[in-house]
Amino acid sequence: MPGVLAVIVSGFFFRAAAVAWDCLPPDAVVWPQNVEQVSMLAKICHCSNTPIIPFGTGTGLEGGVSAVRGGVCFNLTRMDQVLDLNTEDFYVTVEPGVTRKSLNSYLRDSGLWFPVDPGADASLCGMAATSASGTNAVLYGTMKENVVNLEVVLPDGNVLHTAGQDRRFRKSAAGYNLTGLFVGSEGTLGIITKTTLRLSGIPEAIVSAVCAFPSVQAAVDSTVQIRQCGVPIARIEFLDDVMMHACNSFSNLSYAVLPTLFLEFHGTEKGLEEQLKQTEEVIQLNGGSEFTYAKDQETRSKLWTARHNAWYAALGLRPGCKGYSTDVCVPISKLPEIVVETKKDLMESQLTGPIVGHVGDGNFHCIMVLNPDDPDEVHRVKLFTDRLARRALAMNGTCTGEHGIGLGKRKLLVEEVGEIGVEIMRRLKSTLDPKNIMNPGKVL
Amino acid sequence: MPGVLAVIVSGFFFRAAAVAWDCLPPDAVVWPQNVEQVSMLAKICHCSNTPIIPFGTGTGLEGGVSAVRGGVCFNLTRMDQVLDLNTEDFYVTVEPGVTRKSLNSYLRDSGLWFPVDPGADASLCGMAATSASGTNAVLYGTMKENVVNLEVVLPDGNVLHTAGQDRRFRKSAAGYNLTGLFVGSEGTLGIITKTTLRLSGIPEAIVSAVCAFPSVQAAVDSTVQIRQCGVPIARIEFLDDVMMHACNSFSNLSYAVLPTLFLEFHGTEKGLEEQLKQTEEVIQLNGGSEFTYAKDQETRSKLWTARHNAWYAALGLRPGCKGYSTDVCVPISKLPEIVVETKKDLMESQLTGPIVGHVGDGNFHCIMVLNPDDPDEVHRVKLFTDRLARRALAMNGTCTGEHGIGLGKRKLLVEEVGEIGVEIMRRLKSTLDPKNIMNPGKVL
Repeated sequence: MPGVLAVIVSGFFFRAAAVAWDCLPPDAVVWPQNVEQVSMLAKICHCSNTPIIPFGTGTGLEGGVSAVRGGVCFNLTRMDQVLDLNTEDFYVTVEPGVTRKSLNSYLRDSGLWFPVDPGADASLCGMAATSASGTNAVLYGTMKENVVNLEVVLPDGNVLHTAGQDRRFRKSAAGYNLTGLFVGSEGTLGIITKTTLRLSGIPEAIVSAVCAFPSVQAAVDSTVQIRQCGVPIARIEFLDDVMMHACNSFSNLSYAVLPTLFLEFHGTEKGLEEQLKQTEEVIQLNGGSEFTYAKDQETRSKLWTARHNAWYAALGLRPGCKGYSTDVCVPISKLPEIVVETKKDLMESQLTGPIVGHVGDGNFHCIMVLNPDDPDEVHRVKLFTDRLARRALAMNGTCTGEHGIGLGKRKLLVEEVGEIGVEIMRRLKSTLDPKNIMNPGKVL
Repeated sequence: MPGVLAVIVSGFFFRAAAVAWDCLPPDAVVWPQNVEQVSMLAKICHCSNTPIIPFGTGTGLEGGVSAVRGGVCFNLTRMDQVLDLNTEDFYVTVEPGVTRKSLNSYLRDSGLWFPVDPGADASLCGMAATSASGTNAVLYGTMKENVVNLEVVLPDGNVLHTAGQDRRFRKSAAGYNLTGLFVGSEGTLGIITKTTLRLSGIPEAIVSAVCAFPSVQAAVDSTVQIRQCGVPIARIEFLDDVMMHACNSFSNLSYAVLPTLFLEFHGTEKGLEEQLKQTEEVIQLNGGSEFTYAKDQETRSKLWTARHNAWYAALGLRPGCKGYSTDVCVPISKLPEIVVETKKDLMESQLTGPIVGHVGDGNFHCIMVLNPDDPDEVHRVKLFTDRLARRALAMNGTCTGEHGIGLGKRKLLVEEVGEIGVEIMRRLKSTLDPKNIMNPGKVL
C-alpha cells in the first residue's frame, strides 16, 4: 500500500506497555486513502494485538486521540470526498476527512446545510464518533438525530454498514439500532469511514439578537421560559459577565459586562415576527435589555463574533495559561439553580472559569483557565470540576452533554449510569472488540 | 408473590420444544405488579431456561407476542401508573400498563401531550420496545426521538436504567447509547418496566385538511414537494382510490373515490396561514382539488374519521377475510415510483390491498385483505409482499418503517443490513441474553 504508511515510529508492531501518562503518542501513524486500506491495516493490527486510534481532526476535548497504550493512529484526513449528495431527499454521505465547514461550503449552492455546529471545524465522522452537538442542537438536534447510516471498519477488519449498505430512509424498525450504538462510541467499537447525514433546508429568514440581563437568574429564567412557551428558537447561548468582559477585551467590543443571551431565530419572515414578539415579552418580564438585532449575514456574523471567539477570549484572560472546558447538562428547570451555585463555587474556589452555554438544551461550559504548572490550582480545578459534575448528577443531569467521556470522566460515568449500566457497556465493548484494540483506555 | 401467578398452564417450568407453528400460546401467564416481581420472575425463568415473552397490549403487527418456543408471558398491564410528570421540563415516566390514549387523557389539563400515534391504543413501553411511530412522526419523530430513559429487567433479573436512574436530560454524550439499543429491540434483550418520554406542548392552533388528486403520481408528488418546501407539516397521510372507496362504504362518507391526502398543520395562527398558503400552491400545481378545511376539534375529528377507520374499512371490503399490513419505507423522492409500481403489481396479482401511508416519511402500508383458507391467495400475498419489500430495498429503503421484524421478516432483515450487520446483532443479543430466553425466535 504505497503512500499509506507514511510514518512508522520504531516499535510499530510491538504493543506499547500501558503507561500512566495520558498524552503518550502512538507508535505509528498511517494515512489510509480508502476503506479497503483501513480494513487491511485494521486486520494487521488485529493479528498483532496493536491498539488502533482513529483520528479525524483531533479537535475533541476529552483526550480521545491520546495513544495511552501506544499503537497505530489511523489519520483519516486523506479520505476527504463528499459522496452521494442527494438534494431531493436531503442526504449526503461523507468520508472522514470532510469537515463541517468544508461540507457547508460544498453545499453552498444547493439550498441545504448541515446544522450541527460544535464550534471547532471538526471532521463529520469524528462528530458522529463523539456524538457532537453545539449551538444549533436546540432546534436541529445533535449528531444522534442527524446520522442516518455509518460505514464502520470493525476491529477485525470487517466492514459494517450500520443501517445496511446505501440505505437512507427517514425511519426504520429493522433490527437493533446499530447506527445509534456507534454514534458516540468515541472510536472504541470501530473506525467510522463514511457517514450519511440528514441535511436541512437553509431557512428563508434568519434573525440574530443579543440581550443583557441584570442577573444570571434573570437570563437563565428567560431561557427556560422561552423554551416553555414553545418558541422554536434555533440558538440560545448564555455568556456570563466574566465571559462578556473577556470577549470585549479579546474582540475589541463594547457589550455591557452583564449576563447575556445570544439568540438566533430561523424561519419564514412572518414566523420570525411571532417568535421575536414572544421572546421579547419573556425578556421584558425578566428585566432584560432591549434586543440588539441583526438580519443580514454580515451584521449577524459581527453580532456573534463574541460568542464564536469565547474560547480564545477566555484564554486571553490569563495569557500563558491553558484551558479546560467542563460540560454538564441538566433538565432545563434546574439551570438557574446550577448556574448560580456554580458561579458561587468558582468565586469561593478562587478559579477563573467564565461560563458559556447552550442553555436551550440545559448544557453549559465553564472554561477553566489555569496554570498547569501550579499544582495547587490544578488540584482546585479538579475538585471544582468533580463537584460540578456531581451537582449536575444530583439534579438528574449528565456529566457530559456533548464532549464525551474520553479519559477523564470514566469514574463519573459509573456514577451516572450505575454499575449495571457500565457492566452492560463493558459487555458490548467486549463482544465487538474482544481484544480491546479499539482506542483502548477510553470511555470504559 | 400472591396474585402474580394468576394462570399457570401445565408444564410451566418445562421448556416447550421448538415448533414450527407461529401462534403457539405460552405455557403460563404472569401478571407482575412491580419491577421487583418482574425481576424475581425473570430470575426464575433464567434459572430454568424458560422463555420470557413480554406483553403490553398485544397490538403489535409482526407476531411479537407469539410464544413460538413456549415459556412465560409477562403480562404487564397491572403496572399502570403514570409516574413523575414534570411539566416544566416536558417529561413523564410511565409503567408498561399505561397506553398512549390513557397518558394523553392524564395530560389533558397540563397543556402537554405525547404525539407519537401508531393508531392502536398501544402500551407506551411496548411502543418503545417496537420503535413505534405513526401519523405524527413527520413532525414529532418516532419513539427513537422521544424516549429519554428506560428501566429494563434483563434476562438474568438485573435491573438496568439505560441512561442512569432518574436521568432526564435533553442530550448526553455519556458512554454507549443503551436507550437507543433497547428502543426497537422487540422484547429480545429485556423487559421494559418503565419509560421516560419527552412530551410536547399542545399547539396553539391546529388545522386539518383533505384534498383529492387526479392520480397517485400527483398526490405523492405533492407530498414530496411539500416536504421539500420545508413546510413543517404535522401529518400527511395518503389513501388510494381503493382505500377511499372502502372508507366511504364503512363510515358512510361521500369523499371522491380518488387518491387523497389527509393533512394536519400544527402551529400558531399566523404560522398556519403561511403553511396552508405554501401547501395550497403545491397542490394546485399538481391538479389537486380544493382543500376541505377544519379548525375546531369536532370537525377535525369528523374529517379524520376515514383515515382513523382505514384498517376496519379495508377489512369491510371482503367480510370474513383477514388483514395483513405491509410496511415499507423509502427515501421520499422514490415514493411516486414505488407507489405506482405497487398499485400495478396489486392489479396484476389480483389482490385486494388498499394503500394508506405516512407518506411524509416515505412510509406506506398495503392493507392486504385475504382469505386465509385459500392457499393460492395466501401464496400470492406472500409473493407480493416479498416483491414489495425487495422493491423498497432496491430503492435504498427498508422492509419495515415502523412495524418491526418480528417473526416474518427475519430473512428480509439479512437482505437489508447484510450478513455482517446481522452477525453483529446476533453477537449483541448473545452477550445480553446468552441463554436466548428473551422473546426467542423474534428479530434474529
